[in-house]
Amino acid sequence: MTERVVLAYSGGLDTSVAIPYLAEQAGAEVIAVAVDLGQGGEDMTVVRQRALDCGAVEAEVIDARDEFAAGYCVPAIRANALYMDRYPLVSALSRPLIVRHLVAAARRHGGTIVSHGCTGKGNDQVRFEVGLAALAPDLRIVAPARDLAWTRDKAIAFAEEKGLPIDVTARSPYSIDQNLWGRAVETGFLEDIWTAPVEDLYAYTSDPALERDPDEVVITFDGGVPVAIDGETVTPYQAILDLNRRAGAHGVGRLDMVEDRLVGIKSREVYEAPGAVALITAHQELEAVTVERDLARFKRGVDQRWGELVYDGLWFSPLRRALDAFVDDAQRHVTGEVRLTLHGGRAVVTGRRSEASLYDFGLATYDTGDTFDQSLAKGFVRLWGLPSGLAAARDARLGEVSW
Amino acid sequence: MTERVVLAYSGGLDTSVAIPYLAEQAGAEVIAVAVDLGQGGEDMTVVRQRALDCGAVEAEVIDARDEFAAGYCVPAIRANALYMDRYPLVSALSRPLIVRHLVAAARRHGGTIVSHGCTGKGNDQVRFEVGLAALAPDLRIVAPARDLAWTRDKAIAFAEEKGLPIDVTARSPYSIDQNLWGRAVETGFLEDIWTAPVEDLYAYTSDPALERDPDEVVITFDGGVPVAIDGETVTPYQAILDLNRRAGAHGVGRLDMVEDRLVGIKSREVYEAPGAVALITAHQELEAVTVERDLARFKRGVDQRWGELVYDGLWFSPLRRALDAFVDDAQRHVTGEVRLTLHGGRAVVTGRRSEASLYDFGLATYDTGDTFDQSLAKGFVRLWGLPSGLAAARDARLGEVSW
Amino acid sequence: MTERVVLAYSGGLDTSVAIPYLAEQAGAEVIAVAVDLGQGGEDMTVVRQRALDCGAVEAEVIDARDEFAAGYCVPAIRANALYMDRYPLVSALSRPLIVRHLVAAARRHGGTIVSHGCTGKGNDQVRFEVGLAALAPDLRIVAPARDLAWTRDKAIAFAEEKGLPIDVTARSPYSIDQNLWGRAVETGFLEDIWTAPVEDLYAYTSDPALERDPDEVVITFDGGVPVAIDGETVTPYQAILDLNRRAGAHGVGRLDMVEDRLVGIKSREVYEAPGAVALITAHQELEAVTVERDLARFKRGVDQRWGELVYDGLWFSPLRRALDAFVDDAQRHVTGEVRLTLHGGRAVVTGRRSEASLYDFGLATYDTGDTFDQSLAKGFVRLWGLPSGLAAARDARLGEVSW
Amino acid sequence: MTERVVLAYSGGLDTSVAIPYLAEQAGAEVIAVAVDLGQGGEDMTVVRQRALDCGAVEAEVIDARDEFAAGYCVPAIRANALYMDRYPLVSALSRPLIVRHLVAAARRHGGTIVSHGCTGKGNDQVRFEVGLAALAPDLRIVAPARDLAWTRDKAIAFAEEKGLPIDVTARSPYSIDQNLWGRAVETGFLEDIWTAPVEDLYAYTSDPALERDPDEVVITFDGGVPVAIDGETVTPYQAILDLNRRAGAHGVGRLDMVEDRLVGIKSREVYEAPGAVALITAHQELEAVTVERDLARFKRGVDQRWGELVYDGLWFSPLRRALDAFVDDAQRHVTGEVRLTLHGGRAVVTGRRSEASLYDFGLATYDTGDTFDQSLAKGFVRLWGLPSGLAAARDARLGEVSW
Repeated sequence: MTERVVLAYSGGLDTSVAIPYLAEQAGAEVIAVAVDLGQGGEDMTVVRQRALDCGAVEAEVIDARDEFAAGYCVPAIRANALYMDRYPLVSALSRPLIVRHLVAAARRHGGTIVSHGCTGKGNDQVRFEVGLAALAPDLRIVAPARDLAWTRDKAIAFAEEKGLPIDVTARSPYSIDQNLWGRAVETGFLEDIWTAPVEDLYAYTSDPALERDPDEVVITFDGGVPVAIDGETVTPYQAILDLNRRAGAHGVGRLDMVEDRLVGIKSREVYEAPGAVALITAHQELEAVTVERDLARFKRGVDQRWGELVYDGLWFSPLRRALDAFVDDAQRHVTGEVRLTLHGGRAVVTGRRSEASLYDFGLATYDTGDTFDQSLAKGFVRLWGLPSGLAAARDARLGEVSW
Repeated sequence: MTERVVLAYSGGLDTSVAIPYLAEQAGAEVIAVAVDLGQGGEDMTVVRQRALDCGAVEAEVIDARDEFAAGYCVPAIRANALYMDRYPLVSALSRPLIVRHLVAAARRHGGTIVSHGCTGKGNDQVRFEVGLAALAPDLRIVAPARDLAWTRDKAIAFAEEKGLPIDVTARSPYSIDQNLWGRAVETGFLEDIWTAPVEDLYAYTSDPALERDPDEVVITFDGGVPVAIDGETVTPYQAILDLNRRAGAHGVGRLDMVEDRLVGIKSREVYEAPGAVALITAHQELEAVTVERDLARFKRGVDQRWGELVYDGLWFSPLRRALDAFVDDAQRHVTGEVRLTLHGGRAVVTGRRSEASLYDFGLATYDTGDTFDQSLAKGFVRLWGLPSGLAAARDARLGEVSW
Repeated sequence: MTERVVLAYSGGLDTSVAIPYLAEQAGAEVIAVAVDLGQGGEDMTVVRQRALDCGAVEAEVIDARDEFAAGYCVPAIRANALYMDRYPLVSALSRPLIVRHLVAAARRHGGTIVSHGCTGKGNDQVRFEVGLAALAPDLRIVAPARDLAWTRDKAIAFAEEKGLPIDVTARSPYSIDQNLWGRAVETGFLEDIWTAPVEDLYAYTSDPALERDPDEVVITFDGGVPVAIDGETVTPYQAILDLNRRAGAHGVGRLDMVEDRLVGIKSREVYEAPGAVALITAHQELEAVTVERDLARFKRGVDQRWGELVYDGLWFSPLRRALDAFVDDAQRHVTGEVRLTLHGGRAVVTGRRSEASLYDFGLATYDTGDTFDQSLAKGFVRLWGLPSGLAAARDARLGEVSW
Repeated sequence: MTERVVLAYSGGLDTSVAIPYLAEQAGAEVIAVAVDLGQGGEDMTVVRQRALDCGAVEAEVIDARDEFAAGYCVPAIRANALYMDRYPLVSALSRPLIVRHLVAAARRHGGTIVSHGCTGKGNDQVRFEVGLAALAPDLRIVAPARDLAWTRDKAIAFAEEKGLPIDVTARSPYSIDQNLWGRAVETGFLEDIWTAPVEDLYAYTSDPALERDPDEVVITFDGGVPVAIDGETVTPYQAILDLNRRAGAHGVGRLDMVEDRLVGIKSREVYEAPGAVALITAHQELEAVTVERDLARFKRGVDQRWGELVYDGLWFSPLRRALDAFVDDAQRHVTGEVRLTLHGGRAVVTGRRSEASLYDFGLATYDTGDTFDQSLAKGFVRLWGLPSGLAAARDARLGEVSW
């Protein structure tokens, strides 16, 4: 029986050409699977038809937008997931979900091989293949760009030779990945890290320098999950979509950075993630109000590790699961409202309120109503400083002038 | 012989009134010590004269601006010191330096008591007293506001009764602390955390929403220390001063947050720190380019701990010293230039270059000149994913549907 | 109405004398609450009667042995809780449970004050009072030894004066605390840290140097909880009791250390915790077999923080709860058997087996049956070493001879 | 010109056979380099001659014993380096030093290729090759066992065919690596993790169960470096050698564990490291006496990361260097004496003393001379517990029964 390859299909040149190429190279039938993660762009029925036109024996479009928002973006909000303190893991979050759907499709269609379009120097190959090794170690993996030395030029020549229904001239000078959570742009002139990005790189955000009136938004969280915008109940998908639009209109969420790839190199990346940045900004501040200090301090380390792990392709790892258990517990009181002003590229918190607040006006105020007993401080200060005081006395005793 | 109290003197109402009050209460002579940390405001000779007019037997003004910049702000830049990922430790950095000068003054003038104006519910009392316990455990400490239940109203009444040369009507509704590294505002209506700050809170920064042309600045670092601005060699003090002015003009560095105080309560704080934010932003990006990944990941935890420790009043602790040894080593290649655009409240990196860069164009590029051997990836990916793959296989073997 | 004081009662001199003393000082009725945590020693009915004889209006004995084992010792096993890598938190674990029962007794008996016998320089006062502040902030706390400058000598004089039914001559030269989880000895000649402990300090363990035949024990864990000993199902209480006896007979679990107290000083402590050490040793090895590497590495930090937190009196803190959520998740596969040899003061693992093992014979063996594909290694090694290689090349390029 | 291969030569079967094999395969001249790391066994001149007899054009023996002790074992002591809290990094520490000497030999002899005998599933290949990539990226690497599918059986057949002067019958059933710092045994029946080790596995340690009188030893450290044994000044090499002998005689330092290899699998390892275990035990206790609490707590995480990094082959990494800077600073007061009793497999600390001690008898004692001001405790305890108290009050307010 002919083997079947399940291909992660984007609708673009590379994965379109991969359909006949894989069929030819592997002597296999190709099942194209396109996952809708809110990336926008072409109509998904057009994408599906293109796969069939290129020779796929089956082509599926899976609407995973709500699943992506609730199961991947929300955990990222709760973990304030910012790789290197900045990047909200746009591509990294999507890969495990695509992997799930590829595996499910392979099971449905009797596939024995899975294929993706990633190169051998990026992070996404790792995310795909580590996920596949966890969920379906029996499936073989073929990555034409990496394993078969398949290049852009070869793909174009092959498309022309085969008369594939693809517009090979519309090639972007950049490599782009986008979904509900954000948009990543790399390569091209950006590889010169001294050169600034230009305005036409951006699609999710307007120029922050454009004049317009500020927008004010109130985001309600329940247990760390965004549940309402300006008082209207929303699903996670709707929350992100709405904030992409509103924060994007003010140029919020642009990032330009040099980043440590898992494969060991540094690369230049430009991102735009208006909804992600607005939501994480609001979430962090609500945590500041509702999460106890020691927990908040330890959680920073957990958050960092969570981001690294997901960036590094280890979504399906026992550590991610255990970190999520920690985060879940830490979110139990992250409930309340945060007001943000969106303007000029910035999402600025201007207010926060919560039934679960640990901010205690009586203890905090310096005015009438002050309930803080200042007489406690002296003993606290003395014992708090005792270890470093003893160390300083030891230094002095030993004749060291240490400070 | 009459005892001598060395008083940390700001020139404001509270510490001015404290001069006769301490003299009366302690039956002591008061030495007022004002430390110039670049806080601006009144001429320091006026401040000195006021202390004498209030009854100080000696009054000293110490110009510690360069010392503060080089010995306190620079380490904070190198440690990207942002408490709770945001606050650049404006007051926290200044206290240990003031402590040093108080101790030196006590030694010079035969002081046996040291006094400061902090209350018993803030962080600064801890920073002062833990520092004093380390540097001069023999000195007694008197904090009138805390230990003698001294209040604003009492201070005003006392000032009027004694006819002190202080304008008690010019009282700010806020509690303000400022120095070269930034400015902190608290209390007043800010104690309602749902209320937004108003424009007149700010003194170091213009309204980010005001229209003006962007400013572009190139900052040069050598070993993590800012050494030139737009190609002109500067001292750390000059670098911060210049960036306060230029970044402040664009509204960069405003912060509004709920913060975990060391004494166990949460408080609302508004900060402005234009130079600090611009410098740390630039420094972080230069680290992204020049610091190896594993070191960078571990350093985030070190940076966090450094910030907590200094916030918590433990500047003079063995741990701070050991963390600095780590940071020093990690900074050896943080040398190069970062270009920032200052505009609309944002300091945005648009370029970075360094002789010590670890960004390798050949390895990063997808164009001609690619030197990355993609054939290495397959083995890497397989072994990288092996532990989580084995765990997933175990789960499956045990009949768990874990993912 | 007369106020009622709920006193944490041990049956010893200090808390016995405290009964009439508190009654006198506070003009209050005293409720004595003795909690049986498996500390052995006197019959608890004798203890109860003594409280009444000393003047308590009520005296309760609460059998909390199973609750202590299951709710406090088991979480400590799962977190491999060893403060400073050594001390299994004997006293620290018991205090929160005593606090719970004090609060419950106060509620039952209309108590408004709680009292404990701790001094002002130890950890236990913190554990009691932080727990009370969390569970019952309305209750006032009186600690006679600390707050009323109550000393041993005063207690003895008072007991003699009042004719209390207490043998004041049987005073130990040491301060001792013991329960199911272990035994702590301090003060006396141990305050000289150069002097070795002597044999008569010990009660839970025999001299390890005594000749006897080794004992072999197989401990079965289910999800990190000990559930069987040598194949016989046991409760946590039984497991610890049995291993105290068997491991204690071989001198396992003696510790002699200088320890960092929470109040800022270092103190010398001698512990014996035969069951705790045997169980944690076995548990750690079972984790080595069943927990994935990244999770295991991160868990070490979680375990350390858990131990510090509980040592520091913060059992009732949000961070402890969130750490426990992490640990719970990490324990889901810590199921299997560990064989220990108990002999000469050592508990040595000699075998481990588990259905949930991640040890894969096929991948590990160098003999027939090897399934590890060595060809994967080359790519892995090259990319694994790429970041440090690039850094070394940079150093060389800059003329540094760094290694 | 004929290429030259520099071979890491042990004198054993595999690397002996590799000499003619590499010569044949690579058409190259082989330079054999044997590094004396205190591994004992054969006379190194015999080893050298064997290499020549097998066809090496040059054979060098390098005495690196002192260099290994001072430059590798001492940093491990200072970092309390115990991978997975147990394994003192015996092989891991030696590889970077061997790498250095291989590179130096390659430079001396015009070598362009480096070769080692490691397989593709162990850690040592990574340690060799990551080190070589850092120090000499221009050198090619050949690992016959891994890259040329070279097996034990093939090696024996080849040796017999070529009439090599090697006793192929004396093959150990185990794979063994040993040096001054310890001895590692793996494979054979140990691959069954339920089976206990047998006595004849061990060479550095006597059976702990053998009856003999305890040995008492006093180790003096200066800045974390062992400098005297029982009052006699020693070099690091002598200290380790002496303690291997004395602690080994009492069976100290045996380890049997399942370990997480870098390549992603778990393996069973048996170690003996008597000197390492004795020295680290003593060093940890001296740190307990001389290192301030916060520094000690943070250092545990640094120590863990140091051990992981070195285990993972990243000796020549910027992070290791920065961690060492931290450790260096933390060791400045780790000076003093520790007394150990060696007996029955245990190295037990019985005393410690130091000029730099932070143990303060006056603060610690409960007897005459107590200088601790207990009145400070109340304020400390209240503020220490304030954050968790506020959180508990919040829980109660929200109707949660959380504890």
